Amino acid sequence: MQSFHGSFVHTPRRGELELLRDTRIDVTDGCIARISADPPDASCVTTGDNEYFLPGFVDLHVHAPQWPQLGNALHLPLEDWLWQCTFPLEARCADLDYAHAIYTALVRTLLRHGTTTAVYFGSIHVAATCELARLCAEHGQRAVVGKVVMDDPAANPGYYRDESTDAGLAGTQQLIEYVRDLPGELVLPAITPRFIPSCSDSMLQELGKLTAATGAHVQTHCSESDWEHSYVLDRLGKTDTTALDDFGLLTRRSVLAHANFIGADDMRRIGNRGAGIAHCPLSNAYFADSVFPLRAALDKSMHVGLGTDISGGPSASLFDNARHAISSSRILEHGADPSLPAARRGRKHSRIDFRDALWLASAGGAEVLDLPVGRFVEGNRFDAMLIDTARIDGGIYPDTGDDLDALVQKTIYGATPNNIRQVWTDAVARLH
Amino acid sequence: MQSFHGSFVHTPRRGELELLRDTRIDVTDGCIARISADPPDASCVTTGDNEYFLPGFVDLHVHAPQWPQLGNALHLPLEDWLWQCTFPLEARCADLDYAHAIYTALVRTLLRHGTTTAVYFGSIHVAATCELARLCAEHGQRAVVGKVVMDDPAANPGYYRDESTDAGLAGTQQLIEYVRDLPGELVLPAITPRFIPSCSDSMLQELGKLTAATGAHVQTHCSESDWEHSYVLDRLGKTDTTALDDFGLLTRRSVLAHANFIGADDMRRIGNRGAGIAHCPLSNAYFADSVFPLRAALDKSMHVGLGTDISGGPSASLFDNARHAISSSRILEHGADPSLPAARRGRKHSRIDFRDALWLASAGGAEVLDLPVGRFVEGNRFDAMLIDTARIDGGIYPDTGDDLDALVQKTIYGATPNNIRQVWTDAVARLH
Repeated sequence: MQSFHGSFVHTPRRGELELLRDTRIDVTDGCIARISADPPDASCVTTGDNEYFLPGFVDLHVHAPQWPQLGNALHLPLEDWLWQCTFPLEARCADLDYAHAIYTALVRTLLRHGTTTAVYFGSIHVAATCELARLCAEHGQRAVVGKVVMDDPAANPGYYRDESTDAGLAGTQQLIEYVRDLPGELVLPAITPRFIPSCSDSMLQELGKLTAATGAHVQTHCSESDWEHSYVLDRLGKTDTTALDDFGLLTRRSVLAHANFIGADDMRRIGNRGAGIAHCPLSNAYFADSVFPLRAALDKSMHVGLGTDISGGPSASLFDNARHAISSSRILEHGADPSLPAARRGRKHSRIDFRDALWLASAGGAEVLDLPVGRFVEGNRFDAMLIDTARIDGGIYPDTGDDLDALVQKTIYGATPNNIRQVWTDAVARLH
Repeated sequence: MQSFHGSFVHTPRRGELELLRDTRIDVTDGCIARISADPPDASCVTTGDNEYFLPGFVDLHVHAPQWPQLGNALHLPLEDWLWQCTFPLEARCADLDYAHAIYTALVRTLLRHGTTTAVYFGSIHVAATCELARLCAEHGQRAVVGKVVMDDPAANPGYYRDESTDAGLAGTQQLIEYVRDLPGELVLPAITPRFIPSCSDSMLQELGKLTAATGAHVQTHCSESDWEHSYVLDRLGKTDTTALDDFGLLTRRSVLAHANFIGADDMRRIGNRGAGIAHCPLSNAYFADSVFPLRAALDKSMHVGLGTDISGGPSASLFDNARHAISSSRILEHGADPSLPAARRGRKHSRIDFRDALWLASAGGAEVLDLPVGRFVEGNRFDAMLIDTARIDGGIYPDTGDDLDALVQKTIYGATPNNIRQVWTDAVARLH
C-alpha cells in the first residue's frame, strides 16, 4: 500500500473545483482504496506548504513520429507541411533504432509535463509502434497506442503507405496482440485509420469489423478543416461522423481528433454513441481553419478532452493547451475581426474558464477514454502530479494573499515542468 | 571592452532572419563597436555547440503593480476585474515596502524571461513608481517608467485616484525629474495617462504640454475594446487616436497599448506621427473583444512591438506573447466560427510567422521606443540573451537534423527561462 497526504485539487464534475485539504489517500495495487481525514504517517508522501496534488493529465492526441518536428515548419501551407516534412519524417520510423530514440525522448518529456496518459498515433510501421507501446509500459506512462493505417495508393506517398489493405489490417492486428501481451495494464491498443481521405472504403469497413471483434479503442481525425470536411462529403455523400458510424468506427471508445466542423446532427450522433473528441486548440490555429465550438459541445454533455496534436501544435504541454482552450474560446465568443460590428463578430456563450480547462485536461480526457483516472475518487487509479507553486524557476508567482483557488488559477495559466516535482501512474513515481 | 563570439540571430528587417555564424562582437561602454569575423580570444563570452545569442526582448506594456495578480481573476467580467481586484491591488502600492518587494520580484522575473527592456505603468503613487525606476537601474533592466495618471473623480474609485489634476501633474513632473537624475542611462520616464476615460480633459491637455516640454515618452491605452472605443467617441466626438493627437500626446515616442479598434484614418495618423503600438495578443483574448489587425498595421510600416500587459495577459513571457501573436493572427486570417462559410469567416492576409514574431519582440519593440537595441548592428547597445537549445529541462527539443533556422523556430515556439543562460544589457550580465 502507498499513501499520500496533504492537499488534493481536482474537478469531480465539469466547472466544479474541489479542494481536499488535510486529506489522506491510501492506494492498493495502484487503485485508490480509501480517501479519509486520517493523519499522515511516516510512509506517506506528503505535500509541503506550497504544494498540492493534481490528477495526471490525459493527452488525447499525439503523433509520436512527428516529435522531432515540434515547433518547426508551422508557417508552411498544409500541403507542403505534410508532403515535404511530415510524411518523410514519419517514414524514418522504418528504422527501429531511430524510433526507439525519439519515442524514448517523447514519452519521458510528456511525463515531465505531467501527462500521465497519452493517446498516440504511431507510424505505419508495426515494429516501431510496438516499440512505442513497450516504452510507455517501461517508463510507466498510461497510453493508448495505434499503428497508423493509410492504404489508398492515390492519397498517400509511395514511400509511406500500407503496402495493401490486407497488410494494413494484419499490421493492426499484430499491434493489438503485441500490446495486449505486454506486462501490466497501462497500455492499450487502438485501431487507427489516419483519416478517411487516406483510407480505402474496404479498409475502413474491415477496421470497423475489427473494432467490433476486439473492443479496442479507435482514434482518427474527424472534420478537421474546410478541405477535409468537404472531401468526405464529396467522396461519400455524408459527413465524417456519419461515415465513421456507418463503418462501425464510432464507439464508446472512439477518439475523434479536432471535429471542428461537426454539425448539430453530428454532435447528436457522437453523443449517442458516447464517442469522444480530442480538442486541440493550439493545432487548430494552424490547421483547422476555425476554433472548435467547445462550449457548445460541453453544454450537450459530449465527451471532450484535450490534445497537443504534436506536431500540428507546437507545444508538448497540456497546460499550454488548457490555456489555449480558454483563450481561443474567448476569441470565438467575442469574435476576431475588429472591423465587424460587435453583434456580428462573435458567437455568444462560447467561453470556458480555468475550471473547465482543468476538467478537460484531466477528468474530461479520462471520460473520453473510459478510463478510471482523472479524479481523486475511490476506485480510480492513482495517476497524479505534485505541483510546487513556489519554485523560483517555475511559472507560478504566488502572492502572500493567494488562497488555494487563486493558486490553482495561477497553476493552470503558468505551470511549467519546473513546477512539477513528481508524477505517478498507478501510485508509482515515474520521474527519476 | 567586452567581446562576444559565436552565433548571433536577429531580424535586421521585418520578415528577414539573419544568422551570423563565427562572428565576434566587440562592445565598448555598452555599445557595439565592431562586428567582425575575428577569432575569439580568452576574454570572449563564447557560445557552445547548442547555443546562440538573441537580442534581448522589449516588453512594451507592463502594469507593474498588477504583478501579484498574474494568472488570476481572468474569468471575471472587466468591471469586476477592475473594481474588485485590480484597483484595490494597485492601491496597495501606497505602502513603499510592499511596492519594493513586488517590483523587485517583477524586474528580476522579467529579466529571467529575456526581457531586457520593459515599459512600465506604475501606480498613481510617486514614491512607489520612483522605486520601480530605481530597481530597474539597480538590476540593470532597460526601462521606460511612468506614474499612472487618473484624475477624474467620476471615473475612478475614491481610494485610488489623483487627488486633483494639479497633484497628478506635479507627481508626473516629480517622477520625470527623479528618473532623469538616476545614475546611468538605462531608465527613462514616461508620461502616463491611464486612458482617456480615467482622465479629465484639462489633465490630458496639461500632459500634452508636459510632453512637448520634456520630450518624454508617452504611454496610454488606445481603442482597446468596444466599450472604451465607443466611450471616447461619445465623450469627445472623435477616436482615441485623434483625441490623443489633439491633446499633444501622439508623438514619435508614444506607445499606444492594444489599439485593436483603430481605423484606416487612425492608422495613417499614428503612422504619420511615428507613434507605436504595443500589441498584447494574450491580453486581447480576455479584454479587447477582438484580434488586433497586426499584419495590416505591419504592411503599412507602422511601428509595432509586443506587450505582456501583465496582468491583463496571464504570462510574464514575451516568448509566450510572440507565440500568441502568431496563433491569433492565424485565427484572424481563417476566422473563428466554423458554422460560417469559409469565405465569410476570416480576414485574408492576416497571418504572421515566426520571423515576424521575433522581429516584433526585439527590433520592432525597439523601433517603437526609438531606442538603439533589438538588433546586432554597430552603434546599438549590446542587449542580448544567450539561448541554450539543448537544456534537458527546457522547452526546445532539437533534432539531429535541425539547422539554425529550425532551432530558431523551435526557440520562438518553445523557449522557457531554462533555455536562457544569461542576459545582458549594455553588455553587463544581469542574471546571478
